[in-house]
Amino acid sequence: MKLTFLGTGGGLPSPTRGVSALAVQMGRDMLLFDCGEGTQRQFMISPLSFMKVKSIFITHFHGDHFLGLPGLIQSMNFSGREEDLFIFGPAGMVDITATIATLGEFQPSFNICARDIEAGERVNLGRCTVTAIHSDHTVPALSYVLEEPPRRGRFRVDRARELGVPRGPLFSQLQAGKSVTVRGREISPEEVMGPPRPGRKVVYSGDTRPTEALIEAARGAEVLVHEATLDSTLSEGAWEYGHSTARDAAEVAKAAEVGTLILTHISNRYDDAAVLEAEAREIFPNTVVAHDLMTFTVRVRERA
Amino acid sequence: MKLTFLGTGGGLPSPTRGVSALAVQMGRDMLLFDCGEGTQRQFMISPLSFMKVKSIFITHFHGDHFLGLPGLIQSMNFSGREEDLFIFGPAGMVDITATIATLGEFQPSFNICARDIEAGERVNLGRCTVTAIHSDHTVPALSYVLEEPPRRGRFRVDRARELGVPRGPLFSQLQAGKSVTVRGREISPEEVMGPPRPGRKVVYSGDTRPTEALIEAARGAEVLVHEATLDSTLSEGAWEYGHSTARDAAEVAKAAEVGTLILTHISNRYDDAAVLEAEAREIFPNTVVAHDLMTFTVRVRERA
Repeated sequence: MKLTFLGTGGGLPSPTRGVSALAVQMGRDMLLFDCGEGTQRQFMISPLSFMKVKSIFITHFHGDHFLGLPGLIQSMNFSGREEDLFIFGPAGMVDITATIATLGEFQPSFNICARDIEAGERVNLGRCTVTAIHSDHTVPALSYVLEEPPRRGRFRVDRARELGVPRGPLFSQLQAGKSVTVRGREISPEEVMGPPRPGRKVVYSGDTRPTEALIEAARGAEVLVHEATLDSTLSEGAWEYGHSTARDAAEVAKAAEVGTLILTHISNRYDDAAVLEAEAREIFPNTVVAHDLMTFTVRVRERA
Repeated sequence: MKLTFLGTGGGLPSPTRGVSALAVQMGRDMLLFDCGEGTQRQFMISPLSFMKVKSIFITHFHGDHFLGLPGLIQSMNFSGREEDLFIFGPAGMVDITATIATLGEFQPSFNICARDIEAGERVNLGRCTVTAIHSDHTVPALSYVLEEPPRRGRFRVDRARELGVPRGPLFSQLQAGKSVTVRGREISPEEVMGPPRPGRKVVYSGDTRPTEALIEAARGAEVLVHEATLDSTLSEGAWEYGHSTARDAAEVAKAAEVGTLILTHISNRYDDAAVLEAEAREIFPNTVVAHDLMTFTVRVRERA
């Protein structure tokens, strides 16, 4: 699972940061969280192809989070897309999609399936689920929790040996979930496999003040991608406009005991985001500030 | 008068070219011709401020020519704009503006005055006029002719001397359009000023096959900005999709006897547009291929 930060700016773009868009590759599938203006061009600058995007999750309807949709859709069409495209977002997503998918002299020749979703709803995409949770912004907005299904438990070699299973093909059969017979006794996989282990979890905050709901939802996540529009000397302004400071994001990450915190949605007032990284690391050391086209490989986090 | 090419790509953006947008500065005013996705960010990368844009002229409603409008409008609002914004375009401009000016959770706090215009219509902007002419594309589309009002004629020093006007303040009065009295005889400005000279003219083709109408409209222009999506080995494809080759554009420039030809709307198949420049220069030597953020100062062309 690989994250590519296509746009990491907040509100307005800047010469160095496009507006919000985060691509998540899982095998041959790709999801996109938010799609600010210019996302199609960021794809072109990256090694990714926007033709691989299957599902798009929009957090809310401020322009910097969704105005890249019409151009992306038109360019997908121009590039010969035939595959369905799924778009999820808060109430209004279906109406907005109907409007933006046919702007100007354009009709898409592929299906665009939009759906309004509510906090608490879970979308099953096969390889993963995406759950919407309420976020605390100035307009209706969602955060998203991406989770893989639980992975098989660990194979307990010591236990298998105790039961007399010899190393070799019988180990493989048990690991594949099949029972085996050793000295006339049937041994089921459950006897030698540990409990299922949670799949990887990545949480994308969208625009939000720090919330308890996000802490709960992000608990133990491999990666929390949290907005950090401003630094903590400007917290009043951040909260007034429904945003978080880098310190806020770090406190959420710490409380949720995530693996890595990645800060994004950085205001264009920062030429250098080092101040944000520094203040977050005081609270949560494993923090990085995203930059445009940064990639991050999400590895399974072995929990105690 | 200064042109800034904010986006010079055709159809799709590329890593090196944004989609169509051309800013024209005239004193403190700025016009924008077309506004493809990403125009606001191109402004931020350039030395120009999008807050100075007073009037926008859209050539047609393919996404790469107008999908930057909603983001530009939202960012103008975010940046505190109070001044009216004028948007002109082919039939449908008023409806499209109504849609895109209120997309998502947004209401502009400044006036947006949109107007549908037809080929032949002239818009008077004070400092200049912009005339729409029919272009030959796959959908209804316009080209635009920007013209300054005629300039005062030349002051004929030889004639003034013949009439006995002494060098000095009386020269200035005549140049300012006032009559003067010399040795009891009133001399009017008309006696010593040459005929009015045309103002500068810049023509922007938008997307079009080569047309006679554009040749007529561009006659004698200082600058013709003409699309050149493809090179002449691909002319069938270019014409099928309502476009011109670099050779076509050069033939228009030659027939219209313009000063400079600037090629834009370059297909993303060209990593290097030298092939387009070379084929155009064979026909019209004073040709340049625009690149993103290129500027061009339009100087008065002294005609014979």
